[in-house]
Amino acid sequence: MSDTAIPLQTFVPPTAGIHIASNRSQNKAKPTTEEFAGRLREQFQRTRKLSARLTQKLSPEDQQLQSMPDASPTKWHLAHTTWFFDTFILLPRDASVAKPGYEYLFNSYYNQVGPQFRRAQRGILSRPSLDEIWDYRFALEEKLITLWDALTPAELQLIELGIHHEQQHQELIVTDIKHALSFNPLYPKLVDFPDKSSSQKPELHWRHFAPGESWFGCDDGFHFDNEAPLHRAYVHAFRLASRPVINAEYLEFMADGGYHDPRHWLSEGWAWVQENHIEAPLYWINQDGEWWTYTLAGLRPVAAGEPVCHISYFEASAFASWAGKRLPTEYEWELAAQFSDTQGNFLDPEILHPHSAENSQANRIFGNVWQWTQSAYLPYPGYVPPAGAVGEYNGKFMVNQWVLRGGSCATPPGHIRPSYRNFFPVGTRWQFSGVRLADDFI
Amino acid sequence: MSDTAIPLQTFVPPTAGIHIASNRSQNKAKPTTEEFAGRLREQFQRTRKLSARLTQKLSPEDQQLQSMPDASPTKWHLAHTTWFFDTFILLPRDASVAKPGYEYLFNSYYNQVGPQFRRAQRGILSRPSLDEIWDYRFALEEKLITLWDALTPAELQLIELGIHHEQQHQELIVTDIKHALSFNPLYPKLVDFPDKSSSQKPELHWRHFAPGESWFGCDDGFHFDNEAPLHRAYVHAFRLASRPVINAEYLEFMADGGYHDPRHWLSEGWAWVQENHIEAPLYWINQDGEWWTYTLAGLRPVAAGEPVCHISYFEASAFASWAGKRLPTEYEWELAAQFSDTQGNFLDPEILHPHSAENSQANRIFGNVWQWTQSAYLPYPGYVPPAGAVGEYNGKFMVNQWVLRGGSCATPPGHIRPSYRNFFPVGTRWQFSGVRLADDFI
Amino acid sequence: MSDTAIPLQTFVPPTAGIHIASNRSQNKAKPTTEEFAGRLREQFQRTRKLSARLTQKLSPEDQQLQSMPDASPTKWHLAHTTWFFDTFILLPRDASVAKPGYEYLFNSYYNQVGPQFRRAQRGILSRPSLDEIWDYRFALEEKLITLWDALTPAELQLIELGIHHEQQHQELIVTDIKHALSFNPLYPKLVDFPDKSSSQKPELHWRHFAPGESWFGCDDGFHFDNEAPLHRAYVHAFRLASRPVINAEYLEFMADGGYHDPRHWLSEGWAWVQENHIEAPLYWINQDGEWWTYTLAGLRPVAAGEPVCHISYFEASAFASWAGKRLPTEYEWELAAQFSDTQGNFLDPEILHPHSAENSQANRIFGNVWQWTQSAYLPYPGYVPPAGAVGEYNGKFMVNQWVLRGGSCATPPGHIRPSYRNFFPVGTRWQFSGVRLADDFI
Amino acid sequence: MSDTAIPLQTFVPPTAGIHIASNRSQNKAKPTTEEFAGRLREQFQRTRKLSARLTQKLSPEDQQLQSMPDASPTKWHLAHTTWFFDTFILLPRDASVAKPGYEYLFNSYYNQVGPQFRRAQRGILSRPSLDEIWDYRFALEEKLITLWDALTPAELQLIELGIHHEQQHQELIVTDIKHALSFNPLYPKLVDFPDKSSSQKPELHWRHFAPGESWFGCDDGFHFDNEAPLHRAYVHAFRLASRPVINAEYLEFMADGGYHDPRHWLSEGWAWVQENHIEAPLYWINQDGEWWTYTLAGLRPVAAGEPVCHISYFEASAFASWAGKRLPTEYEWELAAQFSDTQGNFLDPEILHPHSAENSQANRIFGNVWQWTQSAYLPYPGYVPPAGAVGEYNGKFMVNQWVLRGGSCATPPGHIRPSYRNFFPVGTRWQFSGVRLADDFI
Repeated sequence: MSDTAIPLQTFVPPTAGIHIASNRSQNKAKPTTEEFAGRLREQFQRTRKLSARLTQKLSPEDQQLQSMPDASPTKWHLAHTTWFFDTFILLPRDASVAKPGYEYLFNSYYNQVGPQFRRAQRGILSRPSLDEIWDYRFALEEKLITLWDALTPAELQLIELGIHHEQQHQELIVTDIKHALSFNPLYPKLVDFPDKSSSQKPELHWRHFAPGESWFGCDDGFHFDNEAPLHRAYVHAFRLASRPVINAEYLEFMADGGYHDPRHWLSEGWAWVQENHIEAPLYWINQDGEWWTYTLAGLRPVAAGEPVCHISYFEASAFASWAGKRLPTEYEWELAAQFSDTQGNFLDPEILHPHSAENSQANRIFGNVWQWTQSAYLPYPGYVPPAGAVGEYNGKFMVNQWVLRGGSCATPPGHIRPSYRNFFPVGTRWQFSGVRLADDFI
Repeated sequence: MSDTAIPLQTFVPPTAGIHIASNRSQNKAKPTTEEFAGRLREQFQRTRKLSARLTQKLSPEDQQLQSMPDASPTKWHLAHTTWFFDTFILLPRDASVAKPGYEYLFNSYYNQVGPQFRRAQRGILSRPSLDEIWDYRFALEEKLITLWDALTPAELQLIELGIHHEQQHQELIVTDIKHALSFNPLYPKLVDFPDKSSSQKPELHWRHFAPGESWFGCDDGFHFDNEAPLHRAYVHAFRLASRPVINAEYLEFMADGGYHDPRHWLSEGWAWVQENHIEAPLYWINQDGEWWTYTLAGLRPVAAGEPVCHISYFEASAFASWAGKRLPTEYEWELAAQFSDTQGNFLDPEILHPHSAENSQANRIFGNVWQWTQSAYLPYPGYVPPAGAVGEYNGKFMVNQWVLRGGSCATPPGHIRPSYRNFFPVGTRWQFSGVRLADDFI
Repeated sequence: MSDTAIPLQTFVPPTAGIHIASNRSQNKAKPTTEEFAGRLREQFQRTRKLSARLTQKLSPEDQQLQSMPDASPTKWHLAHTTWFFDTFILLPRDASVAKPGYEYLFNSYYNQVGPQFRRAQRGILSRPSLDEIWDYRFALEEKLITLWDALTPAELQLIELGIHHEQQHQELIVTDIKHALSFNPLYPKLVDFPDKSSSQKPELHWRHFAPGESWFGCDDGFHFDNEAPLHRAYVHAFRLASRPVINAEYLEFMADGGYHDPRHWLSEGWAWVQENHIEAPLYWINQDGEWWTYTLAGLRPVAAGEPVCHISYFEASAFASWAGKRLPTEYEWELAAQFSDTQGNFLDPEILHPHSAENSQANRIFGNVWQWTQSAYLPYPGYVPPAGAVGEYNGKFMVNQWVLRGGSCATPPGHIRPSYRNFFPVGTRWQFSGVRLADDFI
Repeated sequence: MSDTAIPLQTFVPPTAGIHIASNRSQNKAKPTTEEFAGRLREQFQRTRKLSARLTQKLSPEDQQLQSMPDASPTKWHLAHTTWFFDTFILLPRDASVAKPGYEYLFNSYYNQVGPQFRRAQRGILSRPSLDEIWDYRFALEEKLITLWDALTPAELQLIELGIHHEQQHQELIVTDIKHALSFNPLYPKLVDFPDKSSSQKPELHWRHFAPGESWFGCDDGFHFDNEAPLHRAYVHAFRLASRPVINAEYLEFMADGGYHDPRHWLSEGWAWVQENHIEAPLYWINQDGEWWTYTLAGLRPVAAGEPVCHISYFEASAFASWAGKRLPTEYEWELAAQFSDTQGNFLDPEILHPHSAENSQANRIFGNVWQWTQSAYLPYPGYVPPAGAVGEYNGKFMVNQWVLRGGSCATPPGHIRPSYRNFFPVGTRWQFSGVRLADDFI
């Protein structure tokens, strides 16, 4: 992937102060509790409806599937996102709507709440049935709405967290069911959008960033604990690609023997390739010399203009090495994102697939595919996990995971921010994970 | 378990000639093809109905479950038993009713028919749905009945094999769903029979058998290839217990440290106990010092008078060693069974659990629980597997499996014979497997 | 492997009475205790010397190697065979010559003697050094010889067992070091005999045996507990090949796609082939289209006339199926062996490799390669393990192992008998294990 | 571990400019090539002699041991460190002294040099013998010294790398043999120093650092590629403990249930503790309620004043959480180290164990025990791996490893620098790894 012909779009970043301004919107008046409660109720109801819409085409049998320990059955997600509200809001008010056993079955990993049913065996829970789980959902919603006007500010904050938590599980509903259905040789279709991909390869530009100190993270508006505190860091000069790597480019890497040349791979990545006989991104299938890929619209030819997707950190890193570039750090990515709005290709229950580069939404810094960074998922300077069970939300995963940024076509609209940190182990592929290249520039 | 007080019920077995007579029923007139076809149709329809009755209380989600590679989802059993008829009868007549993919998805292990979907992943097949599988079943039945009068004797024989094959899968439907539901901490109930167990411990007698040559196996009437040929063998003097070992006795073994004393265990069994932390039969749960067991009627106290069940060969062998006895060989068991009718406690869709010893059916040589023998599953002298794909039915499993005899409370009535050989690896516990003791006698 | 041209060498077996006669040598006068003690001392000294001679070309580093849990370091064998005498003779007399820790480090599996160092980690014991182990050996020998005239008949019997036990470990010394050195890409040579193999394929004859009852096992002279008691069994008509299968024949099986055709394989064997990517016998290496094999004389071309060796039961069984024959049962093999003397190609420390068929010793029923039988390793009727720790010698392994008969080029001369039962799990290949075919004959 | 009584030793770090000065010693005159060559020869010879001295008490059998895939036999280290010089200096000059096979057997992981013998099986290589490896070492040394005056500057640089490479393997020789011998229940002793530990618990102070930009890494003098380039970074205010955590403190953590309380553990760490039944640091053994630890001087009581050692990142992190503190980042540690000389307790072949806190060398920032940081091992901004095979030295390990700083009692004197980065996976314990606490301060 040569960059000789690329028009140099030199970029002079604003001062740190401006960063903060764009990030913090200091001038907005804080809403009153009533305003906040009202806005939250609407968000709550919209989010709950999206879960329903997202799963309506899945049969009870589909929703039972667990294809690996890291994935969960659809119906478990539906129950767990309900358990969260029930446990943190209703239970302390002695108003739980859970049936016996639910507190155990639908706790994910909160040791301070109690023991948890084995994660790897969630797929064995045929009971409670999907119908019973919907009863649980409706009961929770009804009870919570009844209580809404009496909720304290602290409770409202927990509900806000619960909404964002449910959005995260909406993304997992999509990625988990895609993984489960991919094993079915009938290649089930959940959606049916027209295949508009062309072989056109969109130009790649570089945005250049000067070195200096900036502000990162977030201390304002809703954000997860792992985004805090807002803090300074020094970032060296770099440039960032104007769009993610696309399949056409990735196919060149493959054709050049990328998967068989240890020079491009991290040592652990090379072992991973060998042991797992990796030859292509997840879901790619070679039929008579042509690459196809399983999508939630069935088996389709790999589209040249779509961003490469369902690749591990190892593959992202090997591709970058082959291309003579590197992955961005999460600070570099965040710096670039601070100057963008958060528009992009997000979750649409009728598509569930990245846009091709012809679509103007495809190449934005947000949406379409998550972008692996070269940053390990670590606490920010001064990070302190919240007290109580909610403190188990993020901090305890801060080892052996790598940061992805930007959101994907499975991320619910409105869920993302410049400071948003997603994280997965480096061999992970079932998320909509792609790569945007970076480079040093003198 | 002392046998000092046991009334000696000396038994003089008839001569070998009489064995053969009882075994072969030489005088019965062979049925005509029409008679055979008519009887078979009735059997076919009765068997298919039993599969329906057996599964009617299971939700689509229950029928999706696969709890381990050795077990299959209920709906897979329903499809596979249909595939068998479709593949061996309809397909050669160009009359298959299978939809695309079924020949691959529902082939169990017949390499000569074609490749098979991975056994360990049958639980991932949410599609075809249970409804579609019932469509497949009904289509097959309708088509086959239409053709019935035109079927050749060879086809009728394959259908007879298919009926017995479906009966075997009916037993697996019961044992597999019990295994799957056992992981659910809600302890689902499929049936609800009264718990009539008492603490009464029925007397145990010994039947004595003199040494000599006898005939074993089967060459007449329906039988599986592994029961043939009828052949002679020399059996040494032995005695056989009048009933299976019951929980009361097994609890004595446990109380005496049976699971912690390597002297009673085969070396491989001792390693198995250590590695798997085995402390009791499968499905037993200790709650506050009391033993409970998961049954398809929910969690119940371990009943003293019921036969010990869901034990491995290792446990059966260790118990026998502790009791100063041994397991019977399959010839010893068969010799004893040749003098019994085949009545006993067989599959009742409303019970699905062994009878307690108070019930006169509990102690018969047939039914209630399979009985581990000390015989490896090996070909009989002169054994030849049938030609073609059907030849893969039994012979290729003749290594590292041990023989069980007698049938259980999950075996469909009419399925069993004195020469019937069941077989499983020695660590297997999810079948209704128990133990009847034998002993040398001078 | 056609047998059409084979001269029919019909064989009328003698009556059972004669079998016994040949087996039991009833007329020999029993030796006095003094005679027995004298003969045993000579045997003891000869056996101890052979262990020294067998290991003298191995460096301390060679003798340290453990290549898999099933194999042990040479020096561990040297210590363990000393521990046996020390524990069962000297210790009860308060005369142990063991240093602290030896009773733990060199106990193999006798739970009744005490705990054992982990088998899979014997290779980590660099201390005690080889020199210290030789000190242990010499101290034991000196002490035992001093006591010799005072030994009781019971002690003499234990010493006889200890001698045969050491002979078994001598065979393991050869097979274990061959396995360990085979991983070294320098292909170390321990011996250097001329390669006299020709491409000549010796004729194969069949010996025919009539059906009937015979006597099997042993109750006279030294024998292991698993050979007792002497007992009757009925054996059906069969015929047995005059020699083992040779490499020329096995190469035909391979050329015919034997390793890629599931029809010939037991189901578990087929899985074993797939998972382990088995393409040829153990130690075979394909270099530029030619097969070579690692021997203790270095890497050599596979010799057409040598018996195929280092194959598993799965391979033996698959070959037999491909050849349209089967493996013999252990009774069939023993019947044939009862009419042979026990001459053959046994352990020669300068060779350690099977003879080629040109050598008249190559095709005898004893020696050269162990012969897999189709018999599971099970207790004989009336078998009772001896009391005490020695009772752990054999009985506790009677599950999931298969019987081999006849001895090999690694078996010390004088160690074998017609009733001798060797046994290994069916996937075992590092022993000198081959195959002699059998067949039914009407 | 309360810090209320700790005298606040406020520390005002110098400006960044001064950092650089201390780090870069800009004013030193560059040595001529001849001076450099002369100094290097002396270093080379001293380093080679240390390898000899370090291994002289190990028998050939000891030097054969490989206790896990991550560890290598002593003799392999001796050969590999010779292979490095042979491959990168002599081979390009057609002057290799390696025997056939050595280039394959003693290549560790340099794919660009050629294939490698399986790392996990190095312990199986009894040949070449230890004597042959010493022949190889001496031949290399002789040849290299002969050539010395003709070496080019590029070759001299490779030799300098080779010397530091051998020093790294000297540390591994110590840690690998300790691991291997630890499995021997005889607890072998290599050294015998007096046990001078007292129960005295040395005071802990905090050094305070103000926030600001500084320079990190290295671009001058010998350093590994992973330390380059010298670069700026912003470090927030922090304080750092004056000494590592000692056993007395770690025992408090254990007594307080530290290993059984999930709140202190990273999620992956908690799973690691459960699966591996971790109860204490590696090599600790509880005998009758007292903690002992295996050292290369044999089994000794755990000394209260010694730094806790042989702990994983998980344990370091859990301890810090329990203590209400955290681990330092590698920048924080390096900042503190920039103001220290590099004295400390380094490799002494007669000790091979950390000093107790009574010893003034015990608490320095360098030496005694490596200190886990909370930093993932990642490339520095602008990092570029060197061209050719040497480029595989460090960069390809930059994923899923965490940084340790400071050196240990097994690090050869003169090997360490403030910018020196060691790295291991987070579950690693066989290195001399401990923990020094850090904290935020407002």
